[in-house]
Amino acid sequence: MNNIAPVPPAQGFADATTPLVKNCWYIAGLASEITRAPRARRILGVDVALYRTLAGAPVAVRNRCPHRSFPLAKGRLEGDELVCLYHGMRFAPSGQCTKMPALPLAPASAAVRSFPVAERGPLVWIWPGNPDHADEDLIPDTSWLSDPLWASVTGQFHMRADYVSMHENLLDQTHFPFLHPGTVGTPDFVRSTLDVREENGMVIIDRSLPNSPPPGIYAMPMDMAGQPVNRFSEARFASPAMHVAFARLTDIDRPGETKREWRFNITHLITPETNNSLHYWWFCSRNTRLEDKAVDRFMYEGSNQAYTEDVEALQWITETILQDETPQLDLNFAPDKPGLLMRRRLRYLADLEAGLLG
Amino acid sequence: MNNIAPVPPAQGFADATTPLVKNCWYIAGLASEITRAPRARRILGVDVALYRTLAGAPVAVRNRCPHRSFPLAKGRLEGDELVCLYHGMRFAPSGQCTKMPALPLAPASAAVRSFPVAERGPLVWIWPGNPDHADEDLIPDTSWLSDPLWASVTGQFHMRADYVSMHENLLDQTHFPFLHPGTVGTPDFVRSTLDVREENGMVIIDRSLPNSPPPGIYAMPMDMAGQPVNRFSEARFASPAMHVAFARLTDIDRPGETKREWRFNITHLITPETNNSLHYWWFCSRNTRLEDKAVDRFMYEGSNQAYTEDVEALQWITETILQDETPQLDLNFAPDKPGLLMRRRLRYLADLEAGLLG
Amino acid sequence: MNNIAPVPPAQGFADATTPLVKNCWYIAGLASEITRAPRARRILGVDVALYRTLAGAPVAVRNRCPHRSFPLAKGRLEGDELVCLYHGMRFAPSGQCTKMPALPLAPASAAVRSFPVAERGPLVWIWPGNPDHADEDLIPDTSWLSDPLWASVTGQFHMRADYVSMHENLLDQTHFPFLHPGTVGTPDFVRSTLDVREENGMVIIDRSLPNSPPPGIYAMPMDMAGQPVNRFSEARFASPAMHVAFARLTDIDRPGETKREWRFNITHLITPETNNSLHYWWFCSRNTRLEDKAVDRFMYEGSNQAYTEDVEALQWITETILQDETPQLDLNFAPDKPGLLMRRRLRYLADLEAGLLG
Repeated sequence: MNNIAPVPPAQGFADATTPLVKNCWYIAGLASEITRAPRARRILGVDVALYRTLAGAPVAVRNRCPHRSFPLAKGRLEGDELVCLYHGMRFAPSGQCTKMPALPLAPASAAVRSFPVAERGPLVWIWPGNPDHADEDLIPDTSWLSDPLWASVTGQFHMRADYVSMHENLLDQTHFPFLHPGTVGTPDFVRSTLDVREENGMVIIDRSLPNSPPPGIYAMPMDMAGQPVNRFSEARFASPAMHVAFARLTDIDRPGETKREWRFNITHLITPETNNSLHYWWFCSRNTRLEDKAVDRFMYEGSNQAYTEDVEALQWITETILQDETPQLDLNFAPDKPGLLMRRRLRYLADLEAGLLG
Repeated sequence: MNNIAPVPPAQGFADATTPLVKNCWYIAGLASEITRAPRARRILGVDVALYRTLAGAPVAVRNRCPHRSFPLAKGRLEGDELVCLYHGMRFAPSGQCTKMPALPLAPASAAVRSFPVAERGPLVWIWPGNPDHADEDLIPDTSWLSDPLWASVTGQFHMRADYVSMHENLLDQTHFPFLHPGTVGTPDFVRSTLDVREENGMVIIDRSLPNSPPPGIYAMPMDMAGQPVNRFSEARFASPAMHVAFARLTDIDRPGETKREWRFNITHLITPETNNSLHYWWFCSRNTRLEDKAVDRFMYEGSNQAYTEDVEALQWITETILQDETPQLDLNFAPDKPGLLMRRRLRYLADLEAGLLG
Repeated sequence: MNNIAPVPPAQGFADATTPLVKNCWYIAGLASEITRAPRARRILGVDVALYRTLAGAPVAVRNRCPHRSFPLAKGRLEGDELVCLYHGMRFAPSGQCTKMPALPLAPASAAVRSFPVAERGPLVWIWPGNPDHADEDLIPDTSWLSDPLWASVTGQFHMRADYVSMHENLLDQTHFPFLHPGTVGTPDFVRSTLDVREENGMVIIDRSLPNSPPPGIYAMPMDMAGQPVNRFSEARFASPAMHVAFARLTDIDRPGETKREWRFNITHLITPETNNSLHYWWFCSRNTRLEDKAVDRFMYEGSNQAYTEDVEALQWITETILQDETPQLDLNFAPDKPGLLMRRRLRYLADLEAGLLG
């Protein structure tokens, strides 16, 4: 293992300037955020108006009337239709114009762009790319977020950072003891066995750490502070929109006793707003002590502290890069491999969408 | 009448990116704003210093000393001359330098640009274009603003919007019932007979609506709420700097009674600050109940509400357009004809100034 | 002497857009600002992290980790080494990486840029250019700032202005009576004999004003208000980083009495942050009434008032230039000669660094 991996050719790896990957399911918002009161959110550079039909189905259309560019989310709903506040032009959930009050008949060819959306548990997904490719089977699994055998705490951030650095931060576990000494960072973990692989466009990291005390954030819900357990974890760059970490902790062999197992799933959902800003939601889910409010509070506080540290760090980096007059080609080291695989994947997808491949 | 007018070729119509028309009288400010204390205002991209001579004549010079670019409006007046605060350089109302204290003689060739100005009632007009063409006969008529047979209320806004959209909003009466349901928008009005014509570079809309109750804003001063009247209105794009609406309301035929007439003139004055921001003054004038403070208050409040709605709408549109990464070519419909005629006129004038025509 | 000097060819004289001169000692900060708590300051467009070793030596390194662009000043010190908060990468004062926790050995070729620094009395100097040319003999003399026979008051500003205009303001004494009527501006001074010369890359102005009362700021510490003295002053553009003024005042001939002498040194230290912003420190030093707090207070207040007037003036000019859509080529007059010599010198140095000369 060399200390310094060869500096990758810049053109093969995504960075903050690479066009955003559009053909992907991203989070439009929490299900609870999308209501009968239209709201606007900028998603991959496009301002989107979000609302629900009377039957409760989420709808996403471009937040810009095709007539005079008025933001439709400032308007109101009539049944399932969004009415522009400026001239009363109306749009069905499909985006089709159904009425233009100043005209005797609705203009048949007028429409606002409508985006494919899909609701899964607490999440509403949106497909900002070519709608012909919006296959709902491509929505990543987050079933634990609505499974009664699991309990979750959650939070969200609006960040000035790029999604490439964000995914790299999530794939990079070597920063835990430095940036998060109080929560997820245990020195042992950094030195644990690491396996990195690519699978179906995902980058997956497996770690196994036998006979070691759990980190603080897990030790409390497990009630195992300071006691050794076996620890298995998988972190995966699931898609440009999602990173998920699965932690499984088990008792070390205890003669004559049943071996217990604790599981924690950490779901990170990332929707670029622009190349340098993003919407971020996290869920920290557990399969133990589901009803215990003290555990909820503890896990929320620990998670929120660690993710706030990440958010601040990434924002500082963004600011550093954007205001620096002298560009820097960052150095890469062997432990950066997961991030580099992810950067290569994002670059491949971006090039594919730009028609640069084959 | 087709529902959708053909999308006009973009090159023939002005939009927010078209160079501003400079050879035109614009409002520099209210007469009351221009005093012996120099003030700065940015007009068509140029910072201008405004003040009055001892005799009361308004003066406008570029707000940038030709020596070291110091803003002259930060300086002070000596008689009719503006003295730069930095090195004491002095300028006559003509812009000619009359003194440079560090030199034995004033440098004969030094001058700051001076702009033609003209005062008319409560308004001071400025000509930002070629001064050789600054013919005062071109100043639009606003005589009712200083006529003792009329009374006015007034207000002003600094807006983040382009003057093309602003003029279009003023020529467009189909938005009244949607954006202004509480004040000027009556459903009948939208469906009234409409005549659009061009005349001497103006775009003029005539409407006639017999036997219909007046809108709220006029009904109160007329004391005719809910009672039918005949209503004639003319709205005109008078110049790049001004839109004016003349409303005339008369009694319907009442056997044996004199037919009364009420008139309202609404004056909109628009001075672009930049391509995407503007100074806006409005006056709402009436020829009835001149001394009645309750009418003043009512008409100010109704006007202010309606124009605040317009200002907000136009600012939302500006923000939508400026932050959207994907441009949109707005759709045009038959009722957009007045706005399109105005856009064509502004484009013609801009092309003329750019030397693009013949 | 002509009233208007020929307008200089723009290419031979520096202005706000000219590349900043890097091969020069600039102030990194006051000695008291640089401590064991790392701090960041942007110097000539580069973000720099500043701290002290355990032995007290000042250190300046680029504030951007070479691994993932994290700002190093957010990190902490371990002994003399700066530790990145993100992955724990460590750097010696030389910039050499000494440890990367995720690697078994420190990567030998990894380093952050380190800048030559030197401490002189209350000042820490930095060399942002080619370190091979960072000769400490080039640091300008400021020995009076740490000489027990002198006393100083000091202040600092962060300004939105360019260093060319700042130096011109300091070389330009014709603005004193207009911008600083209450403090340094006496009408006599403007008309005093003036000698301008270039010497070793410096621009030096000598003035001599016999038999005239001292300006307010000196009269009080001298206790000579309204009494005539002989006054000699030298103002020099010492380097792109420094302007210094030496004032010497003596009694006029008084038969039978010893001739007294008072001296005041005014030190202006200018570090561009970017082309349009700068860090500015001033010191007003005297060789009289060293322990008198009332003199300290008086000189601080007078200086602070005058320099605040300069800072505001230069910021107004910057704003005027940056927001004006129509560029202006400023006029030059004979008294602008010192500033023009300085502009020519800065331009020469910038061209030299750009490899444009010979």
